[in-house]
Amino acid sequence: MVNPKILQVFPNPAPGRDYVIEHTHHEFTSMCPVTGHPDFGSITVRYVASGRCVELKSLKLYLHAFRNEGIYFEAVTNRICDDLGALLRPRSLTVTSQWKGRGGITSVITASWIPRRPGRRGA
Amino acid sequence: MVNPKILQVFPNPAPGRDYVIEHTHHEFTSMCPVTGHPDFGSITVRYVASGRCVELKSLKLYLHAFRNEGIYFEAVTNRICDDLGALLRPRSLTVTSQWKGRGGITSVITASWIPRRPGRRGA
Amino acid sequence: MVNPKILQVFPNPAPGRDYVIEHTHHEFTSMCPVTGHPDFGSITVRYVASGRCVELKSLKLYLHAFRNEGIYFEAVTNRICDDLGALLRPRSLTVTSQWKGRGGITSVITASWIPRRPGRRGA
Amino acid sequence: MVNPKILQVFPNPAPGRDYVIEHTHHEFTSMCPVTGHPDFGSITVRYVASGRCVELKSLKLYLHAFRNEGIYFEAVTNRICDDLGALLRPRSLTVTSQWKGRGGITSVITASWIPRRPGRRGA
Amino acid sequence: MVNPKILQVFPNPAPGRDYVIEHTHHEFTSMCPVTGHPDFGSITVRYVASGRCVELKSLKLYLHAFRNEGIYFEAVTNRICDDLGALLRPRSLTVTSQWKGRGGITSVITASWIPRRPGRRGA
Amino acid sequence: MVNPKILQVFPNPAPGRDYVIEHTHHEFTSMCPVTGHPDFGSITVRYVASGRCVELKSLKLYLHAFRNEGIYFEAVTNRICDDLGALLRPRSLTVTSQWKGRGGITSVITASWIPRRPGRRGA
Amino acid sequence: MVNPKILQVFPNPAPGRDYVIEHTHHEFTSMCPVTGHPDFGSITVRYVASGRCVELKSLKLYLHAFRNEGIYFEAVTNRICDDLGALLRPRSLTVTSQWKGRGGITSVITASWIPRRPGRRGA
Amino acid sequence: MVNPKILQVFPNPAPGRDYVIEHTHHEFTSMCPVTGHPDFGSITVRYVASGRCVELKSLKLYLHAFRNEGIYFEAVTNRICDDLGALLRPRSLTVTSQWKGRGGITSVITASWIPRRPGRRGA
Amino acid sequence: MVNPKILQVFPNPAPGRDYVIEHTHHEFTSMCPVTGHPDFGSITVRYVASGRCVELKSLKLYLHAFRNEGIYFEAVTNRICDDLGALLRPRSLTVTSQWKGRGGITSVITASWIPRRPGRRGA
Amino acid sequence: MVNPKILQVFPNPAPGRDYVIEHTHHEFTSMCPVTGHPDFGSITVRYVASGRCVELKSLKLYLHAFRNEGIYFEAVTNRICDDLGALLRPRSLTVTSQWKGRGGITSVITASWIPRRPGRRGA
Repeated sequence: MVNPKILQVFPNPAPGRDYVIEHTHHEFTSMCPVTGHPDFGSITVRYVASGRCVELKSLKLYLHAFRNEGIYFEAVTNRICDDLGALLRPRSLTVTSQWKGRGGITSVITASWIPRRPGRRGA
Repeated sequence: MVNPKILQVFPNPAPGRDYVIEHTHHEFTSMCPVTGHPDFGSITVRYVASGRCVELKSLKLYLHAFRNEGIYFEAVTNRICDDLGALLRPRSLTVTSQWKGRGGITSVITASWIPRRPGRRGA
Repeated sequence: MVNPKILQVFPNPAPGRDYVIEHTHHEFTSMCPVTGHPDFGSITVRYVASGRCVELKSLKLYLHAFRNEGIYFEAVTNRICDDLGALLRPRSLTVTSQWKGRGGITSVITASWIPRRPGRRGA
Repeated sequence: MVNPKILQVFPNPAPGRDYVIEHTHHEFTSMCPVTGHPDFGSITVRYVASGRCVELKSLKLYLHAFRNEGIYFEAVTNRICDDLGALLRPRSLTVTSQWKGRGGITSVITASWIPRRPGRRGA
Repeated sequence: MVNPKILQVFPNPAPGRDYVIEHTHHEFTSMCPVTGHPDFGSITVRYVASGRCVELKSLKLYLHAFRNEGIYFEAVTNRICDDLGALLRPRSLTVTSQWKGRGGITSVITASWIPRRPGRRGA
Repeated sequence: MVNPKILQVFPNPAPGRDYVIEHTHHEFTSMCPVTGHPDFGSITVRYVASGRCVELKSLKLYLHAFRNEGIYFEAVTNRICDDLGALLRPRSLTVTSQWKGRGGITSVITASWIPRRPGRRGA
Repeated sequence: MVNPKILQVFPNPAPGRDYVIEHTHHEFTSMCPVTGHPDFGSITVRYVASGRCVELKSLKLYLHAFRNEGIYFEAVTNRICDDLGALLRPRSLTVTSQWKGRGGITSVITASWIPRRPGRRGA
Repeated sequence: MVNPKILQVFPNPAPGRDYVIEHTHHEFTSMCPVTGHPDFGSITVRYVASGRCVELKSLKLYLHAFRNEGIYFEAVTNRICDDLGALLRPRSLTVTSQWKGRGGITSVITASWIPRRPGRRGA
Repeated sequence: MVNPKILQVFPNPAPGRDYVIEHTHHEFTSMCPVTGHPDFGSITVRYVASGRCVELKSLKLYLHAFRNEGIYFEAVTNRICDDLGALLRPRSLTVTSQWKGRGGITSVITASWIPRRPGRRGA
Repeated sequence: MVNPKILQVFPNPAPGRDYVIEHTHHEFTSMCPVTGHPDFGSITVRYVASGRCVELKSLKLYLHAFRNEGIYFEAVTNRICDDLGALLRPRSLTVTSQWKGRGGITSVITASWIPRRPGRRGA
């Protein structure tokens, strides 16, 4: 079971500057909810921190937890985006998932979290 | 015979967010309508979903159906764009076909579907 | 002798849409007008068609005809641009030539044809 | 239907020398006999000619003919090896097929034809 | 639980010829028995068949079954070698595992099964 | 101990022109402040000089000095940006650090120094 | 001694069109003015011609002349930019030098010549 | 017309040592004798000199002379091998031609000249 | 201080088979004993185990310990070879170090440990 | 003037073991003795030391000294081989020079020094 509470944060060491932090996990795997076959890919998290940064080892363990989860490409990308957006309340955040081929097809899903705009997006 | 009815959809899991879905089929093949020789290439479909997403396996079978179809590069690209636009009514959609060399020439065709604008484009 | 009349056209199958057609000929060769040595490179033609598309085999034969022509990099690029612009009257057109090294120097020439603007450019 | 009679030969221009001829067809496709899905790969033919060489265009058409044939990786490799061995009676011949991934698995099959040895191999 | 009984065979279509069959599974994953962290790599199986060939889909499912198994690099390589050797009794067989980096270290393990020699190796 | 006083400058040879200087140190290493394990990566410094340029050998020695420093990715990037900004008072400055994988995760941090704007950023 | 008078020009064959000419010399070498060690890199000249184009062989000889010149990365880039700008009076001109590593550091310097604006830049 | 008399030699500077000299011409072109279409490829000459070495510029001009010659892949490879063997009487000599794709097929031809053995090979 | 006692072993899981284990550490660094500058490279350990295998994490820590050691390329390669040979008494062992460029020169050192031969090699 | 006396040696740290030392200088340049144009390439020195190893910095300076020397590819390769053989009296030594293209031709020269055999080779 994937639990966002596993994610830990530390204070942004340069809160006065809009700088970009990007982490790419190259060994992501989850399960296809229909066929039960494993999916493999990478997850890139790119954000401008506000007060908090995500701790790298906890991010790895959070992503490992999808290993035996049955979940669609589109859904897992949006879920990671929602979990990290809620945790970090960042100035900006984009999550990209890139998936290895199934039957000759590769896929890339890219979702952005929009901060501080109460309304239909990003919450 | 290529039939767009083979395409299936599922509800967009994050309709409140404009996120990008991209699928690339690396093993596309059709026939040259003039010479009858096979053509080989890849098809990339990139869209922002509105209410519906295209189901991946049905997309693969739809693209496989061009295997023995005699059709020009320009025509097949526009046809896939039209079929997926009509099916998904997406917020935006671009179809790119990349073709391996014939006589030392490679080709790339890129067509976009323009949503909700009744008029000369996108329909 | 290079003759643009060898180029053939076919009707644009999707005239209602501004889509991009790109052909790259990877085996272009002509002669240096000064030294008489052969030059090797590639020619990329990228255009948005108006009413007509260039037929691929006739494009290949047209480009083959430069094989024993003595002509500068800059001149051949502009000439192909002029010939295709006059033939297709496209919505837009760019011709790029990339040349293999001579004495450790490689070159790239990029020329665009500007449609429907009578004046100093594109004619 | 694949028919080896489509293959044509021409006389070896240097029969007094053991030299190696290698042709690789990069756009081979056949069908999986079980699932009916298309397979994609390349076929490399490497041989030392005796009296005859295989004509390149007829080799291409012979390989194209597998397009809608349902046949296993192992069987198609051995069949091409048998057909070319019987046609050319070469001094030596190796056929290698390399297959793109299905479900994350790629395959390579390599079979050699042994000339002039009547017995259990090569016939 | 990994069970070699999931593996299926089909009759060698060319038993009179010593030809090489190679399958590479690019998406292998198992667990480190000490840390519980996932390991990722590829498994290459290369063999000369005797009477039987391994069926490709059953090979994929057999390899998928290691997904949640805690097992060392050295042990998993030898186990696959033993299981396939016992199943196929091939003329020769080599199994290679290549592992992605852990703490900056990548690994490759290569084990061969020796047929028909009762004694200390290969059984 | 990392000391920015090791950095040396020389006068900008073309102060009348806004041109871009970029140096990439491919062999940066520091220590993880938590685990004590070494981190490896590269540091790219990209700036438009005002009156002063940084001398290349002193830059190398300054970066070498992080070798046994325990410091986070985010902190080291901002620190180099601050040190070089204070030294050079450049027209613009961006520092990018790219880090090799730890547990399958690679990272990129990009921070910019904003000149002459007294306020919350760049000082 | 590097002398810009070695550079030769020919009339722009398409003066009515703003097209881009790019030459890259991959085998540039000069000397470090401090250590006397050789530096190696490439020089890219990219411009839109006005009335004159630079002749390719004379450009090569001009660049060869830096072979035993002691000169800084920043200075050589600006000098080539100044020499070519003065010679060609182009519509635009950018010179980029890319330098191989010294002590693990690579560098890229990019300078642009600004035409027709009398003032602090480009002269 | 290709004339081997264009080839020039110079004395082997180290006749007491069996060392290997290899030249690769990356821009070879000739014509298909059947279709009249141009063929493109590379020619590698690898030899151990006896008393004479081939002069590089004359080798280039000799290879350029095939530009408008109609000749098969197999024949051109053997002809270059014969011409250089007769000229150099080397200790050993191998000529390899690699040809770009025609209709998705690439080819490699490799022929060796056998010195000092009067008989069926190498003469 | 580098201490081989940090190395740990585990029993060879397949002692009846001569199989190859290869570990490559991509982030090796030590110091030049003359200049005090850091050196960077990779270390590959390739062996056939007898009774014992080297534990991977202890190997990493052993290699990390060279971080501030002043030692020549040739000496560090032979030392690792000696330490692992003495620890594992393997059937065979080769250690290769590959070093990044210093002043445009890269180096590779390869040393093998010879088992069971008391005498001048391998101790 | 190239002077082999610039080369320095240090005692082989593992004289009891036949291990391989390989240095590649990637930035070699000399002059064509005929045209006066610069040549660029790399020099690889691969040897098994007897009592002495070549010191790396002196090797670099020795190779730099060819910078303005007019010398053929074949001659420079044999000369470096002779100089290092005479200096090191190694158990074995091979020198390889790889040259960038001139007029579309690249070259590789490989010469070996044969130790302790007084006679026609290696001296």
